[in-house]
Amino acid sequence: MYSLGIDLGGTNIKAGVVRDDYTLLSATAIPTSVASGVGTVTANIEEITHKVLEQTGLDIGDIRGVGVGCPGLVDSSKGIVRYSNNLYWHNYPLAEKLSNAFAGLPVTLGNDANAAALGEYLIGSARGTASAVIITLGTGVGTGIVIDGKIATGFGSGAGELGHMVIEKGGRPCSCGRLGCWEAYCSATGLKKLTRETMDKNLDSTMWTISENDGKISGRTAFIAARQGDSAGQSVVDEYISYLACGIANIINALQPEVISIGGGVGQEGENLFVPLREQVRHQVLGGPGYMVTALRSCTLGNQAGIIGAAMFDKRLDL
Amino acid sequence: MYSLGIDLGGTNIKAGVVRDDYTLLSATAIPTSVASGVGTVTANIEEITHKVLEQTGLDIGDIRGVGVGCPGLVDSSKGIVRYSNNLYWHNYPLAEKLSNAFAGLPVTLGNDANAAALGEYLIGSARGTASAVIITLGTGVGTGIVIDGKIATGFGSGAGELGHMVIEKGGRPCSCGRLGCWEAYCSATGLKKLTRETMDKNLDSTMWTISENDGKISGRTAFIAARQGDSAGQSVVDEYISYLACGIANIINALQPEVISIGGGVGQEGENLFVPLREQVRHQVLGGPGYMVTALRSCTLGNQAGIIGAAMFDKRLDL
Repeated sequence: MYSLGIDLGGTNIKAGVVRDDYTLLSATAIPTSVASGVGTVTANIEEITHKVLEQTGLDIGDIRGVGVGCPGLVDSSKGIVRYSNNLYWHNYPLAEKLSNAFAGLPVTLGNDANAAALGEYLIGSARGTASAVIITLGTGVGTGIVIDGKIATGFGSGAGELGHMVIEKGGRPCSCGRLGCWEAYCSATGLKKLTRETMDKNLDSTMWTISENDGKISGRTAFIAARQGDSAGQSVVDEYISYLACGIANIINALQPEVISIGGGVGQEGENLFVPLREQVRHQVLGGPGYMVTALRSCTLGNQAGIIGAAMFDKRLDL
Repeated sequence: MYSLGIDLGGTNIKAGVVRDDYTLLSATAIPTSVASGVGTVTANIEEITHKVLEQTGLDIGDIRGVGVGCPGLVDSSKGIVRYSNNLYWHNYPLAEKLSNAFAGLPVTLGNDANAAALGEYLIGSARGTASAVIITLGTGVGTGIVIDGKIATGFGSGAGELGHMVIEKGGRPCSCGRLGCWEAYCSATGLKKLTRETMDKNLDSTMWTISENDGKISGRTAFIAARQGDSAGQSVVDEYISYLACGIANIINALQPEVISIGGGVGQEGENLFVPLREQVRHQVLGGPGYMVTALRSCTLGNQAGIIGAAMFDKRLDL
């Protein structure tokens, strides 16, 4: 059988058809049109999903169900988007609306970071493991916890928000309202802020030329500068990795998963990131280097993870 | 049937006989005698366990198995105490040694905080819940995570060490070697340090009289002073609760358990602790007060939790 997976983002809606062996058959995307309101976004989801189904030549009768990864707080058991600050939605019964549009098919909602985590767990970087935490370093820090093949959803579908763990009490303001969240330091947004601040203090840094050539300061700016021997760029990379290591060691002390996978732009820095990161984390886990059992890896699926994971929500949420 | 539960501490060994309905039939304790070495401690465990069995009038044939809650890092799947800084043990095959002493009965080792958590989950403050995190505020901050009725042990039996989550990067030194762990602020040890520091800066505080009358500075000193209207005592209580709230909000954002129970001396401060704590936590969980679903409670079993939980390790570790 097949499922429909939808990755509902603040910028784009992506939809795909996923076979029960987790193969993504076809996928497509359209802009979200958040400003047009909830009805239009829902109509857009329906449209793109019917379109992708058509592309595969399958019929609605071949589809087992629909899964949607939504940004923000989702009540999976009731099928409601409780609160999304990206979409400006409050208590919207998206599952019911979509089920009506798809011949009564069951629709399962979940968090978008959990969808991406599930995709990586089922067929990506954490395939075949007993437990995993998947971290996406993007606009925010999205995370999902998989234990025994299921996403840990928590008592109200709100678990897995490790980006909103305070690691520096009273520190940088986070979009969630707390001070010092991991996300405030380790999201691409946080990295760009640190890069900008460091550039302002180092007017001779090559980060100026690099960002001028790129047309913007990005999460890559400091990494490129560091590779070119720029000391200010290196200091940004060092500080960024020390915060990343701090949060990852926290996660290992809390959950000790078999694998932690890192995705998003920064995750693609490869061994420039992973070699110093592993070294720092090893020394921070309880017991020290001899007791580090968790493997740190790069995510492998990219944007497909969220579609594949959402499609499998019906069987893989620990509700 | 019945099981033997052993709570192996750095100071005392406690043992009890537990019925399959989690009733503790009989319990007793002896000093651990750490300095006499691993062989003597093992002999002491055997002695006290046989003694408590005798007290109940049961025979070894009535016993299904033995569970031991050990301080430090334990490999439950191999039955080995990997590392305990309280006992000075390294890679000690305690399960095998005890099994030989108990007619070949199966022996399951686990972490002592996990044993206490399991006890509270099965028959104490978190009974009947879907998921719980139990926090014991003692010499350290011991925690155990229960999901779907099982202790989350992690890939190497090292999960559930939430006390060693850094909440203030670069902050107070922790016994684990990191800086700024939750334990460094919220253990009774951390509270006593903060109390002492605040007393030194406030020579007119009633905390001086209170600690003189008690013969020592304790975790209660500041709480008593605060109730008497002492402003320095109140500032200690306020700061302590703000760190406690920070760590608890982190746990809720990560795992969103149905219940978080707090035990240890500080947990007995009752509503003086829980009223301000709940208020602060509600505002720090993702989404804000309207999204707080986790209940905060006091532990109810005291020292019995560790014995009862250890006795049930064989069925309740998620290995």
